[in-house]
Amino acid sequence: VLHTFGLPEAEIDKELASVLPQTGLVRLGLLTSPLGVSIVLTAIGVDNSRKGKGAMATLARAEQAVRERLRRWIYAEGDQTMEQVVGQALRDRRLMLAVAESCTGGLICHRLTEVPGSSSYVDRSVVTYSNRAKVELLGVPEDVLQRHGAVSAEVAAAMAYAVRTRFRADIGLSVTGIAGPDGGSERKPVGLVYIGLDAAGHSNDAADGHRDVREFRFHGNRQIIKMRASQAALDLLRQWLQDTTAGSKRGST
Amino acid sequence: VLHTFGLPEAEIDKELASVLPQTGLVRLGLLTSPLGVSIVLTAIGVDNSRKGKGAMATLARAEQAVRERLRRWIYAEGDQTMEQVVGQALRDRRLMLAVAESCTGGLICHRLTEVPGSSSYVDRSVVTYSNRAKVELLGVPEDVLQRHGAVSAEVAAAMAYAVRTRFRADIGLSVTGIAGPDGGSERKPVGLVYIGLDAAGHSNDAADGHRDVREFRFHGNRQIIKMRASQAALDLLRQWLQDTTAGSKRGST
Repeated sequence: VLHTFGLPEAEIDKELASVLPQTGLVRLGLLTSPLGVSIVLTAIGVDNSRKGKGAMATLARAEQAVRERLRRWIYAEGDQTMEQVVGQALRDRRLMLAVAESCTGGLICHRLTEVPGSSSYVDRSVVTYSNRAKVELLGVPEDVLQRHGAVSAEVAAAMAYAVRTRFRADIGLSVTGIAGPDGGSERKPVGLVYIGLDAAGHSNDAADGHRDVREFRFHGNRQIIKMRASQAALDLLRQWLQDTTAGSKRGST
Repeated sequence: VLHTFGLPEAEIDKELASVLPQTGLVRLGLLTSPLGVSIVLTAIGVDNSRKGKGAMATLARAEQAVRERLRRWIYAEGDQTMEQVVGQALRDRRLMLAVAESCTGGLICHRLTEVPGSSSYVDRSVVTYSNRAKVELLGVPEDVLQRHGAVSAEVAAAMAYAVRTRFRADIGLSVTGIAGPDGGSERKPVGLVYIGLDAAGHSNDAADGHRDVREFRFHGNRQIIKMRASQAALDLLRQWLQDTTAGSKRGST
Protein backbone atom coordinates (compact mmCIF):
# COMPACT_ATOMS: atom_id res chain seq x y z
CA VAL A 1 0.00 0.00 0.00
CA LEU A 2 1.42 3.35 -1.07
CA HIS A 3 -0.15 6.57 0.25
CA THR A 4 -0.26 9.64 -2.00
CA PHE A 5 -1.42 13.20 -1.50
CA GLY A 6 -1.98 15.93 -4.04
CA LEU A 7 -3.19 14.05 -7.10
CA PRO A 8 -6.90 13.29 -7.75
CA GLU A 9 -7.89 9.64 -8.07
CA ALA A 10 -8.76 10.00 -11.77
CA GLU A 11 -5.31 11.34 -12.55
CA ILE A 12 -3.59 8.54 -10.65
CA ASP A 13 -5.69 6.05 -12.56
CA LYS A 14 -4.60 7.62 -15.84
CA GLU A 15 -0.95 7.80 -14.80
CA LEU A 16 -0.89 4.17 -13.79
CA ALA A 17 -2.83 2.79 -16.75
CA SER A 18 0.25 3.04 -18.95
CA VAL A 19 2.82 1.69 -16.49
CA LEU A 20 1.03 -1.27 -14.94
CA PRO A 21 1.41 -4.67 -16.61
CA GLN A 22 -1.76 -6.00 -18.19
CA THR A 23 -0.96 -9.58 -17.22
CA GLY A 24 -3.87 -10.07 -14.83
CA LEU A 25 -1.34 -11.05 -12.14
CA VAL A 26 -1.52 -7.72 -10.28
CA ARG A 27 -4.69 -6.00 -9.19
CA LEU A 28 -4.79 -2.23 -8.63
CA GLY A 29 -7.08 -0.65 -6.05
CA LEU A 30 -7.45 3.04 -5.16
CA LEU A 31 -8.79 4.21 -1.80
CA THR A 32 -9.68 7.90 -1.52
CA SER A 33 -9.96 9.77 1.80
CA PRO A 34 -9.38 13.36 3.01
CA LEU A 35 -5.76 12.29 3.57
CA GLY A 36 -5.26 11.48 -0.11
CA VAL A 37 -5.38 8.44 -2.34
CA SER A 38 -3.91 5.12 -1.26
CA ILE A 39 -2.73 2.74 -3.94
CA VAL A 40 -3.22 -0.93 -3.16
CA LEU A 41 -1.35 -3.39 -5.34
CA THR A 42 -2.25 -7.05 -4.91
CA ALA A 43 -0.59 -10.04 -6.52
CA ILE A 44 -3.10 -12.67 -7.58
CA GLY A 45 -2.61 -16.39 -7.04
CA VAL A 46 0.66 -16.27 -5.13
CA ASP A 47 1.92 -19.74 -4.23
CA ASN A 48 5.05 -21.82 -4.73
CA SER A 49 4.23 -22.64 -8.32
CA ARG A 50 6.12 -21.00 -11.16
CA LYS A 51 3.07 -18.92 -11.99
CA GLY A 52 2.77 -17.83 -8.33
CA LYS A 53 6.39 -16.71 -8.18
CA GLY A 54 5.85 -14.88 -11.44
CA ALA A 55 3.00 -12.95 -9.81
CA MET A 56 5.30 -11.83 -6.96
CA ALA A 57 7.94 -10.67 -9.42
CA THR A 58 5.30 -8.82 -11.41
CA LEU A 59 4.06 -7.18 -8.20
CA ALA A 60 7.57 -5.98 -7.37
CA ARG A 61 7.96 -4.55 -10.86
CA ALA A 62 4.54 -2.90 -10.67
CA GLU A 63 5.42 -1.32 -7.31
CA GLN A 64 8.67 -0.02 -8.76
CA ALA A 65 6.83 1.46 -11.74
CA VAL A 66 4.25 3.17 -9.48
CA ARG A 67 6.98 4.56 -7.24
CA GLU A 68 8.85 6.02 -10.19
CA ARG A 69 5.80 7.53 -11.83
CA LEU A 70 4.34 9.05 -8.64
CA ARG A 71 7.53 9.69 -6.68
CA ARG A 72 6.63 13.26 -5.74
CA TRP A 73 3.19 12.36 -4.37
CA ILE A 74 3.93 9.21 -2.37
CA TYR A 75 4.40 10.24 1.24
CA ALA A 76 4.22 6.95 3.10
CA GLU A 77 3.57 3.25 2.79
CA GLY A 78 1.76 0.57 4.77
CA ASP A 79 0.94 1.65 8.33
CA GLN A 80 3.09 4.79 8.18
CA THR A 81 1.36 8.11 8.69
CA MET A 82 2.26 11.54 7.30
CA GLU A 83 3.05 12.79 10.82
CA GLN A 84 5.48 9.91 11.39
CA VAL A 85 7.26 10.55 8.09
CA VAL A 86 7.55 14.30 8.69
CA GLY A 87 8.60 13.72 12.30
CA GLN A 88 11.34 11.30 11.30
CA ALA A 89 12.69 13.76 8.70
CA LEU A 90 12.73 16.60 11.26
CA ARG A 91 14.39 14.40 13.85
CA ASP A 92 17.02 13.12 11.40
CA ARG A 93 17.99 16.67 10.55
CA ARG A 94 17.67 18.02 14.11
CA LEU A 95 15.28 20.74 13.03
CA MET A 96 12.83 22.47 15.34
CA LEU A 97 9.39 23.33 14.01
CA ALA A 98 6.92 26.00 15.11
CA VAL A 99 3.40 26.14 13.68
CA ALA A 100 0.87 28.96 13.29
CA GLU A 101 -2.60 27.64 12.60
CA SER A 102 -5.79 29.48 11.84
CA CYS A 103 -8.49 27.42 10.11
CA THR A 104 -6.97 24.05 11.06
CA GLY A 105 -7.50 25.04 14.71
CA GLY A 106 -4.65 23.00 16.21
CA LEU A 107 -5.07 19.88 14.10
CA ILE A 108 -1.57 20.06 12.62
CA CYS A 109 0.09 20.24 16.01
CA HIS A 110 -2.28 17.59 17.37
CA ARG A 111 -1.27 15.23 14.55
CA LEU A 112 2.44 15.91 14.94
CA THR A 113 2.24 15.24 18.68
CA GLU A 114 0.49 11.90 18.21
CA VAL A 115 3.98 10.55 17.50
CA PRO A 116 6.03 9.53 20.57
CA GLY A 117 9.13 11.67 20.98
CA SER A 118 7.69 14.59 19.00
CA SER A 119 8.77 17.01 21.74
CA SER A 120 12.26 16.81 20.26
CA TYR A 121 11.18 18.58 17.07
CA VAL A 122 7.89 20.37 17.91
CA ASP A 123 8.66 23.55 19.82
CA ARG A 124 5.24 25.12 19.99
CA SER A 125 2.16 26.01 18.02
CA VAL A 126 -0.14 28.94 18.18
CA VAL A 127 -3.72 28.79 17.01
CA THR A 128 -4.52 32.36 16.07
CA TYR A 129 -8.20 32.13 15.34
CA SER A 130 -8.98 35.82 15.70
CA ASN A 131 -7.30 38.70 13.85
CA ARG A 132 -6.36 40.18 17.22
CA ALA A 133 -4.47 36.98 18.01
CA LYS A 134 -2.61 37.21 14.68
CA VAL A 135 -1.52 40.74 15.49
CA GLU A 136 -0.69 40.20 19.16
CA LEU A 137 0.91 36.76 19.12
CA LEU A 138 2.55 36.89 15.71
CA GLY A 139 2.96 40.55 14.99
CA VAL A 140 1.22 40.26 11.63
CA PRO A 141 0.95 43.93 10.59
CA GLU A 142 -2.59 45.28 10.86
CA ASP A 143 -2.33 46.94 7.46
CA VAL A 144 -1.43 43.60 5.83
CA LEU A 145 -4.51 42.06 7.43
CA GLN A 146 -6.63 44.95 6.27
CA ARG A 147 -5.25 45.21 2.76
CA HIS A 148 -5.23 41.51 1.91
CA GLY A 149 -7.60 39.94 4.46
CA ALA A 150 -6.76 37.26 7.03
CA VAL A 151 -7.09 34.59 4.35
CA SER A 152 -4.37 35.63 1.92
CA ALA A 153 -0.96 34.58 0.71
CA GLU A 154 0.54 37.66 2.39
CA VAL A 155 -0.82 36.75 5.83
CA ALA A 156 0.21 33.08 5.46
CA ALA A 157 3.75 34.22 4.65
CA ALA A 158 3.80 36.66 7.58
CA MET A 159 2.54 33.99 9.99
CA ALA A 160 5.16 31.42 8.92
CA TYR A 161 7.95 34.00 9.16
CA ALA A 162 6.72 35.17 12.56
CA VAL A 163 6.55 31.77 14.25
CA ARG A 164 9.99 30.86 12.95
CA THR A 165 11.76 34.05 13.98
CA ARG A 166 9.79 34.98 17.14
CA PHE A 167 10.12 31.50 18.57
CA ARG A 168 13.64 30.92 17.24
CA ALA A 169 12.66 27.72 15.42
CA ASP A 170 14.34 26.40 12.26
CA ILE A 171 11.10 26.13 10.32
CA GLY A 172 7.81 28.01 10.49
CA LEU A 173 4.67 26.45 9.04
CA SER A 174 1.39 28.34 8.74
CA VAL A 175 -2.18 27.82 7.59
CA THR A 176 -4.93 30.35 7.06
CA GLY A 177 -8.17 29.60 5.29
CA ILE A 178 -11.94 29.34 5.35
CA ALA A 179 -13.18 26.04 6.78
CA GLY A 180 -16.84 27.03 6.50
CA PRO A 181 -19.71 26.54 6.38
CA ASP A 182 -19.92 30.33 6.88
CA GLY A 183 -17.40 33.04 6.12
CA GLY A 184 -17.00 32.44 2.41
CA SER A 185 -17.50 34.98 -0.38
CA GLU A 186 -17.38 34.89 -4.16
CA ARG A 187 -13.77 35.99 -4.27
CA LYS A 188 -12.79 33.91 -1.23
CA PRO A 189 -14.98 30.81 -1.14
CA VAL A 190 -15.19 28.21 1.62
CA GLY A 191 -12.26 25.83 1.14
CA LEU A 192 -9.75 28.50 0.12
CA VAL A 193 -6.58 27.85 2.11
CA TYR A 194 -3.10 29.37 2.06
CA ILE A 195 -0.13 27.49 3.46
CA GLY A 196 3.18 29.11 4.25
CA LEU A 197 6.59 27.59 4.86
CA ASP A 198 9.53 29.59 6.11
CA ALA A 199 12.87 27.94 6.73
CA ALA A 200 16.07 29.44 8.04
CA GLY A 201 19.11 29.39 5.83
CA HIS A 202 22.58 28.34 6.85
CA SER A 203 23.84 31.90 7.10
CA ASN A 204 22.30 34.96 8.67
CA ASP A 205 21.54 36.30 5.22
CA ALA A 206 17.75 36.46 4.87
CA ALA A 207 17.97 35.59 1.19
CA ASP A 208 19.59 32.29 2.13
CA GLY A 209 16.39 30.87 3.65
CA HIS A 210 13.44 29.30 1.91
CA ARG A 211 10.00 30.85 1.65
CA ASP A 212 6.99 29.31 0.00
CA VAL A 213 3.26 30.04 -0.02
CA ARG A 214 0.71 27.83 -1.77
CA GLU A 215 -2.95 28.35 -2.49
CA PHE A 216 -5.40 25.45 -2.26
CA ARG A 217 -9.11 25.08 -2.87
CA PHE A 218 -10.53 22.18 -0.94
CA HIS A 219 -14.00 20.70 -1.14
CA GLY A 220 -16.02 19.03 1.59
CA ASN A 221 -17.47 19.94 4.95
CA ARG A 222 -15.66 21.76 7.73
CA GLN A 223 -14.03 18.64 9.17
CA ILE A 224 -12.84 17.46 5.77
CA ILE A 225 -11.43 20.88 4.82
CA LYS A 226 -9.55 21.03 8.13
CA MET A 227 -8.16 17.54 7.56
CA ARG A 228 -7.16 18.25 3.94
CA ALA A 229 -5.54 21.55 4.91
CA SER A 230 -3.51 19.87 7.66
CA GLN A 231 -2.42 17.17 5.25
CA ALA A 232 -1.43 19.72 2.59
CA ALA A 233 0.63 21.66 5.13
CA LEU A 234 2.45 18.56 6.38
CA ASP A 235 3.01 17.43 2.78
CA LEU A 236 4.51 20.77 1.79
CA LEU A 237 6.89 20.43 4.73
CA ARG A 238 7.67 16.80 3.82
CA GLN A 239 8.49 17.69 0.21
CA TRP A 240 10.74 20.52 1.27
CA LEU A 241 12.56 18.30 3.77
CA GLN A 242 12.97 15.63 1.10
CA ASP A 243 14.22 18.02 -1.58
CA THR A 244 16.73 19.75 0.65
CA THR A 245 18.01 16.47 2.06
CA ALA A 246 18.50 15.15 -1.47
CA GLY A 247 20.20 18.43 -2.32
CA SER A 248 22.61 18.38 0.60
CA LYS A 249 23.40 14.72 -0.04
CA ARG A 250 24.25 15.54 -3.62
CA GLY A 251 26.26 18.49 -2.37
CA SER A 252 28.34 16.39 -0.01
CA THR A 253 29.51 13.80 -2.54
CA VAL B 1 -28.21 7.23 24.36
CA LEU B 2 -26.70 9.29 27.19
CA HIS B 3 -22.97 10.07 27.16
CA THR B 4 -21.09 10.26 30.47
CA PHE B 5 -17.54 11.12 31.42
CA GLY B 6 -15.76 10.68 34.72
CA LEU B 7 -17.26 7.48 36.13
CA PRO B 8 -15.86 4.00 35.39
CA GLU B 9 -18.17 1.52 33.69
CA ALA B 10 -18.33 -0.70 36.80
CA GLU B 11 -19.50 2.17 38.95
CA ILE B 12 -22.19 3.18 36.46
CA ASP B 13 -23.36 -0.41 36.39
CA LYS B 14 -23.60 -0.42 40.18
CA GLU B 15 -25.35 2.96 40.32
CA LEU B 16 -27.94 1.91 37.77
CA ALA B 17 -28.63 -1.56 39.18
CA SER B 18 -30.76 -0.08 41.94
CA VAL B 19 -32.68 2.46 39.88
CA LEU B 20 -33.53 0.53 36.72
CA PRO B 21 -36.81 -1.42 36.66
CA GLN B 22 -36.39 -5.19 36.57
CA THR B 23 -39.38 -5.64 34.28
CA GLY B 24 -37.50 -6.99 31.30
CA LEU B 25 -39.03 -4.20 29.22
CA VAL B 26 -35.90 -2.03 29.12
CA ARG B 27 -32.44 -3.24 28.19
CA LEU B 28 -29.33 -1.44 29.43
CA GLY B 29 -26.13 -1.33 27.39
CA LEU B 30 -22.84 0.39 28.27
CA LEU B 31 -20.28 1.42 25.62
CA THR B 32 -16.85 2.44 26.87
CA SER B 33 -14.40 4.57 24.86
CA PRO B 34 -11.64 7.11 25.67
CA LEU B 35 -14.43 9.73 25.60
CA GLY B 36 -16.30 8.06 28.48
CA VAL B 37 -19.14 5.61 28.91
CA SER B 38 -22.29 5.84 26.82
CA ILE B 39 -25.49 4.48 28.29
CA VAL B 40 -27.86 2.89 25.80
CA LEU B 41 -31.41 2.27 26.99
CA THR B 42 -33.61 0.19 24.70
CA ALA B 43 -37.30 -0.57 25.09
CA ILE B 44 -38.13 -4.14 24.15
CA GLY B 45 -41.18 -5.12 22.12
CA VAL B 46 -42.52 -1.66 21.38
CA ASP B 47 -45.75 -1.74 19.36
CA ASN B 48 -49.30 -0.46 19.62
CA SER B 49 -50.36 -3.11 22.12
CA ARG B 50 -50.86 -2.25 25.77
CA LYS B 51 -47.67 -4.08 26.64
CA GLY B 52 -45.78 -2.19 23.92
CA LYS B 53 -46.99 1.18 25.21
CA GLY B 54 -46.03 0.06 28.68
CA ALA B 55 -42.48 -0.57 27.45
CA MET B 56 -42.24 3.01 26.12
CA ALA B 57 -43.49 4.42 29.42
CA THR B 58 -41.00 2.25 31.31
CA LEU B 59 -38.20 3.49 29.02
CA ALA B 60 -39.12 7.11 29.76
CA ARG B 61 -39.11 6.40 33.51
CA ALA B 62 -35.79 4.55 33.23
CA GLU B 63 -34.25 7.45 31.32
CA GLN B 64 -35.46 9.86 33.98
CA ALA B 65 -34.00 7.71 36.74
CA VAL B 66 -30.62 7.48 34.97
CA ARG B 67 -30.56 11.22 34.39
CA GLU B 68 -31.25 11.92 38.05
CA ARG B 69 -28.72 9.46 39.36
CA LEU B 70 -25.92 10.45 36.99
CA ARG B 71 -26.76 14.12 36.42
CA ARG B 72 -23.24 15.37 37.07
CA TRP B 73 -21.61 12.96 34.63
CA ILE B 74 -23.97 13.13 31.67
CA TYR B 75 -22.53 15.62 29.20
CA ALA B 76 -24.51 14.94 26.03
CA GLU B 77 -27.08 12.71 24.41
CA GLY B 78 -27.62 11.09 21.02
CA ASP B 79 -25.40 12.57 18.29
CA GLN B 80 -24.24 15.51 20.41
CA THR B 81 -20.52 15.84 21.10
CA MET B 82 -18.75 17.35 24.09
CA GLU B 83 -17.35 20.15 21.91
CA GLN B 84 -20.85 21.05 20.68
CA VAL B 85 -22.22 21.17 24.24
CA VAL B 86 -19.35 23.27 25.55
CA GLY B 87 -19.50 25.52 22.49
CA GLN B 88 -23.21 26.14 22.90
CA ALA B 89 -22.77 27.03 26.58
CA LEU B 90 -19.95 29.46 25.76
CA ARG B 91 -21.95 31.03 22.96
CA ASP B 92 -25.11 31.37 25.09
CA ARG B 93 -23.14 33.23 27.72
CA ARG B 94 -21.00 35.22 25.26
CA LEU B 95 -17.78 34.05 26.85
CA MET B 96 -14.43 33.99 25.09
CA LEU B 97 -12.09 31.07 25.74
CA ALA B 98 -8.30 30.83 25.44
CA VAL B 99 -6.50 27.51 25.81
CA ALA B 100 -2.96 26.58 26.83
CA GLU B 101 -2.12 23.01 25.92
CA SER B 102 0.95 20.99 26.62
CA CYS B 103 0.50 17.20 26.43
CA THR B 104 -2.74 17.38 24.44
CA GLY B 105 -0.75 19.10 21.68
CA GLY B 106 -3.60 21.13 20.18
CA LEU B 107 -6.29 18.46 20.39
CA ILE B 108 -8.59 20.55 22.63
CA CYS B 109 -8.57 23.50 20.25
CA HIS B 110 -8.88 21.17 17.27
CA ARG B 111 -11.99 19.61 18.79
CA LEU B 112 -13.53 22.96 19.71
CA THR B 113 -12.98 24.27 16.18
CA GLU B 114 -14.67 21.26 14.57
CA VAL B 115 -17.92 23.04 15.43
CA PRO B 116 -19.14 25.63 12.87
CA GLY B 117 -19.18 29.14 14.30
CA SER B 118 -16.61 28.35 16.99
CA SER B 119 -14.67 31.50 16.08
CA SER B 120 -17.24 33.42 18.13
CA TYR B 121 -16.02 31.84 21.38
CA VAL B 122 -12.51 30.47 20.68
CA ASP B 123 -10.03 33.31 20.74
CA ARG B 124 -6.78 31.44 20.48
CA SER B 125 -4.80 28.52 21.77
CA VAL B 126 -1.15 28.08 22.43
CA VAL B 127 0.53 24.71 22.43
CA THR B 128 3.52 25.19 24.69
CA TYR B 129 5.30 21.92 24.28
CA SER B 130 8.71 23.06 25.50
CA ASN B 131 9.47 24.73 28.84
CA ARG B 132 10.92 27.67 26.92
CA ALA B 133 7.55 28.12 25.24
CA LYS B 134 5.79 28.08 28.63
CA VAL B 135 8.08 30.83 29.87
CA GLU B 136 8.10 32.95 26.71
CA LEU B 137 4.51 32.69 25.55
CA LEU B 138 2.77 32.43 28.92
CA GLY B 139 5.18 33.98 31.36
CA VAL B 140 5.13 30.92 33.60
CA PRO B 141 7.86 31.81 36.14
CA GLU B 142 11.04 29.79 35.64
CA ASP B 143 11.30 29.10 39.36
CA VAL B 144 7.79 27.59 39.42
CA LEU B 145 8.81 25.32 36.55
CA GLN B 146 11.99 24.37 38.34
CA ARG B 147 10.51 23.89 41.78
CA HIS B 148 7.41 21.95 40.79
CA GLY B 149 8.23 20.61 37.31
CA ALA B 150 6.32 21.32 34.09
CA VAL B 151 3.77 18.65 35.01
CA SER B 152 2.37 20.06 38.25
CA ALA B 153 -0.74 21.69 39.66
CA GLU B 154 1.17 24.95 40.05
CA VAL B 155 2.15 25.12 36.37
CA ALA B 156 -1.37 24.16 35.22
CA ALA B 157 -2.76 27.00 37.33
CA ALA B 158 -0.17 29.46 36.02
CA MET B 159 -0.90 28.47 32.40
CA ALA B 160 -4.68 28.90 32.79
CA TYR B 161 -4.26 32.26 34.49
CA ALA B 162 -1.76 33.41 31.85
CA VAL B 163 -3.88 32.62 28.78
CA ARG B 164 -6.91 34.28 30.32
CA THR B 165 -5.21 37.49 31.40
CA ARG B 166 -2.56 37.86 28.67
CA PHE B 167 -5.06 37.29 25.90
CA ARG B 168 -7.91 39.12 27.66
CA ALA B 169 -10.26 36.14 27.44
CA ASP B 170 -13.05 35.39 29.91
CA ILE B 171 -11.88 31.86 30.62
CA GLY B 172 -8.46 30.22 30.52
CA LEU B 173 -8.19 26.43 30.22
CA SER B 174 -4.88 24.58 30.53
CA VAL B 175 -3.50 21.06 30.35
CA THR B 176 -0.07 19.78 31.29
CA GLY B 177 0.79 16.12 31.61
CA ILE B 178 2.81 13.14 30.47
CA ALA B 179 1.33 11.44 27.41
CA GLY B 180 4.16 8.89 27.18
CA PRO B 181 5.40 6.42 26.33
CA ASP B 182 8.58 8.13 27.61
CA GLY B 183 9.03 10.90 30.16
CA GLY B 184 7.40 9.18 33.14
CA SER B 185 8.96 8.59 36.54
CA GLU B 186 7.88 6.85 39.74
CA ARG B 187 6.58 10.07 41.25
CA LYS B 188 5.17 11.36 37.97
CA PRO B 189 4.06 8.38 35.88
CA VAL B 190 2.87 8.38 32.29
CA GLY B 191 -0.79 9.39 32.32
CA LEU B 192 -0.45 12.00 35.08
CA VAL B 193 -2.30 15.10 33.87
CA TYR B 194 -3.16 18.43 35.52
CA ILE B 195 -6.00 20.55 34.20
CA GLY B 196 -6.47 24.19 35.16
CA LEU B 197 -9.49 26.44 34.78
CA ASP B 198 -9.34 30.16 35.41
CA ALA B 199 -12.42 32.33 34.96
CA ALA B 200 -12.79 36.05 35.36
CA GLY B 201 -15.17 37.35 37.98
CA HIS B 202 -17.74 40.08 37.48
CA SER B 203 -15.68 42.67 39.30
CA ASN B 204 -12.01 43.53 39.01
CA ASP B 205 -11.42 41.90 42.37
CA ALA B 206 -9.15 38.89 41.74
CA ALA B 207 -10.89 36.96 44.53
CA ASP B 208 -14.15 37.22 42.60
CA GLY B 209 -13.01 34.87 39.85
CA HIS B 210 -12.90 31.10 39.81
CA ARG B 211 -9.77 28.97 39.90
CA ASP B 212 -9.61 25.21 39.81
CA VAL B 213 -6.88 22.63 39.21
CA ARG B 214 -7.54 18.90 39.01
CA GLU B 215 -5.19 15.95 38.93
CA PHE B 216 -5.93 12.93 36.77
CA ARG B 217 -4.21 9.62 36.17
CA PHE B 218 -5.13 8.19 32.81
CA HIS B 219 -4.31 4.78 31.40
CA GLY B 220 -3.74 3.79 27.80
CA ASN B 221 -1.34 4.63 25.02
CA ARG B 222 -0.29 8.10 23.97
CA GLN B 223 -3.28 8.71 21.69
CA ILE B 224 -5.75 7.54 24.34
CA ILE B 225 -4.16 9.64 27.09
CA LYS B 226 -4.31 12.71 24.84
CA MET B 227 -7.97 12.01 24.04
CA ARG B 228 -8.90 11.40 27.70
CA ALA B 229 -7.06 14.52 28.84
CA SER B 230 -8.84 16.65 26.23
CA GLN B 231 -12.18 15.19 27.29
CA ALA B 232 -11.47 15.81 30.99
CA ALA B 233 -10.52 19.43 30.27
CA LEU B 234 -13.65 20.08 28.22
CA ASP B 235 -15.77 18.35 30.87
CA LEU B 236 -14.32 20.49 33.66
CA LEU B 237 -15.22 23.55 31.61
CA ARG B 238 -18.70 22.16 30.89
CA GLN B 239 -19.41 21.49 34.56
CA TRP B 240 -18.27 24.93 35.57
CA LEU B 241 -20.42 26.56 32.87
CA GLN B 242 -23.40 24.48 33.98
CA ASP B 243 -22.92 25.21 37.69
CA THR B 244 -22.51 28.93 37.24
CA THR B 245 -25.46 29.15 34.84
CA ALA B 246 -27.64 27.34 37.35
CA GLY B 247 -26.28 29.63 40.05
CA SER B 248 -27.01 32.85 38.16
CA LYS B 249 -30.48 31.58 37.23
CA ARG B 250 -31.23 30.90 40.87
CA GLY B 251 -29.78 34.28 41.72
CA SER B 252 -32.07 36.10 39.31
CA THR B 253 -35.36 34.66 40.55
